[in-house]
Amino acid sequence: MPSFPTNVVIREVGLRDGLQSIQTMLPTKHKIEWIGDAYAAGQREIEVGSFVPARLLPQLADTAELVAYAKTLPGLVVSVLVPNLKGAERAIDSEADLLLVPLSASHEHSLANLRKTPDEVVAEVARIRAARDAAGSKTLIEGGIGTAFGCTIQGRVDQAEVLRCMQALLDAGADRVSIADTVGYAGPAAVRDLFEKARKVAGERFWCGHFHDTRGLALANVYAALETGVARFDATLAGIGGCPHAPGASGNASSEDLAFMLADMGIETGIDIPALLALRAKVARWLEGETLHGALWLAGLPKTFAVPAALNA
Amino acid sequence: MPSFPTNVVIREVGLRDGLQSIQTMLPTKHKIEWIGDAYAAGQREIEVGSFVPARLLPQLADTAELVAYAKTLPGLVVSVLVPNLKGAERAIDSEADLLLVPLSASHEHSLANLRKTPDEVVAEVARIRAARDAAGSKTLIEGGIGTAFGCTIQGRVDQAEVLRCMQALLDAGADRVSIADTVGYAGPAAVRDLFEKARKVAGERFWCGHFHDTRGLALANVYAALETGVARFDATLAGIGGCPHAPGASGNASSEDLAFMLADMGIETGIDIPALLALRAKVARWLEGETLHGALWLAGLPKTFAVPAALNA
Repeated sequence: MPSFPTNVVIREVGLRDGLQSIQTMLPTKHKIEWIGDAYAAGQREIEVGSFVPARLLPQLADTAELVAYAKTLPGLVVSVLVPNLKGAERAIDSEADLLLVPLSASHEHSLANLRKTPDEVVAEVARIRAARDAAGSKTLIEGGIGTAFGCTIQGRVDQAEVLRCMQALLDAGADRVSIADTVGYAGPAAVRDLFEKARKVAGERFWCGHFHDTRGLALANVYAALETGVARFDATLAGIGGCPHAPGASGNASSEDLAFMLADMGIETGIDIPALLALRAKVARWLEGETLHGALWLAGLPKTFAVPAALNA
Repeated sequence: MPSFPTNVVIREVGLRDGLQSIQTMLPTKHKIEWIGDAYAAGQREIEVGSFVPARLLPQLADTAELVAYAKTLPGLVVSVLVPNLKGAERAIDSEADLLLVPLSASHEHSLANLRKTPDEVVAEVARIRAARDAAGSKTLIEGGIGTAFGCTIQGRVDQAEVLRCMQALLDAGADRVSIADTVGYAGPAAVRDLFEKARKVAGERFWCGHFHDTRGLALANVYAALETGVARFDATLAGIGGCPHAPGASGNASSEDLAFMLADMGIETGIDIPALLALRAKVARWLEGETLHGALWLAGLPKTFAVPAALNA
């Protein structure tokens, strides 16, 4: 049987992938409280927002302010999403630790959502890399390959095309690549297969999986990915978000459920689950009326769950 | 990487494990329609009820009638739960194909729920085996080991005790043994570990896993179990049920979500998923107001999902 990573990072993307599809406008002060509480609960990588034009996503218009706050927290890896060079320049100016450029492996989804072909996104990544290097910036560039398991518009997406895009992103200067099941089409056998091949293409530079829970398979998919050695996963508190273009979408992998699964597997995440559940309850109050997800908040931790003494104090 | 079974049986236990914790009384004619539709959708193993005293579980008082109907469907494996020898005698009289005797590996849960110690249940299985053999009956005897991953009353349940109970059931004459996560405490690493060991104890006689979705891990647990070669899983349509003694329980593995996961993995189940979803919608109408679970019914099948031509006609 394959072994599992001993340490796994849950990258919290609720403030970006979660909030971008939520109607309730969350005030900046609440977002700052969220980031602070997540940090206090042990989360060390947070995607705080997206440098897109404010008119397109007013919910995320305060991203620069959030990066500035998050950068004050020692050891926190602060990431942002950027759709293009202009956004990347703002990310570099803000001194974000990492900027993620989404690429859609589905040609049709790419045109519909990004108004670019996958290869045009690759070319943009090359320009972003040049700008980053010219600025002497340390901001890492991650190419995030979405619709990697299929697409609601185009349907099938060839595995070969996903891997080709991955190699092209690396060749264009991406420091990291990741794979996302944007519309919740992935099952665990497909994940295991694609992630094994992606590891062969990118080695340690393939570093993150992003799963939506549209058909209830997010955690099974994480488990399958763990067996391939991938040790970083995007998730959102209360499972908020998911692709707004995916009909019937039932959210992202929930951070708290994922943290529980990993802890139960004996994998270290650094997360204090009771503290994360307390934050979830707070965010749930802020987002009253919005659809939330996850199971652990309702069931609670098992009686047998060992909370480390230091955390339980 | 471990391989998966090529064929997997989803044993529908909604009519027993599902309905027993549901308030709405489902009339016998609806249960018969459910069994008939499940059979038409390709399900070939159904637990139709439980031979317990009607005053304890009035919802399941029509079990004999359901067995009689289910036995008219060619190739359907009809199973029932029985708590003791008296129930087993009724199961044998009814000519059920299989009777499942629950044993709780948690001593305290066993006393609270069955009013017997695990070893007293083992002794009862020996009596049931003698009665079955004396009757010249072909009804298979399955010992189902519950609370195998922990218990809400006792807390920790030792793996060694689960395996000891399994060996004792086999020694007492059980033809089959299975493992259930009665209270939803299992995670996939624990499943993989215990199921590998259980296969060593019982070989092919260890044949079924039963997972509750209390903490959202039922499908991840099935995936982990598949890697150990186990090829039969209990599930309930719409995820109904789960242990009534498990607070906050969020149901069983949902039959339709599990069928989708397996189909997506290329594993044959014989199930026509659109037909199963149609049955789910019917059962949801019958059980209006009850808490249902699952994700596929809302999201629908992916655009890329290939429905076999014969089923799509």
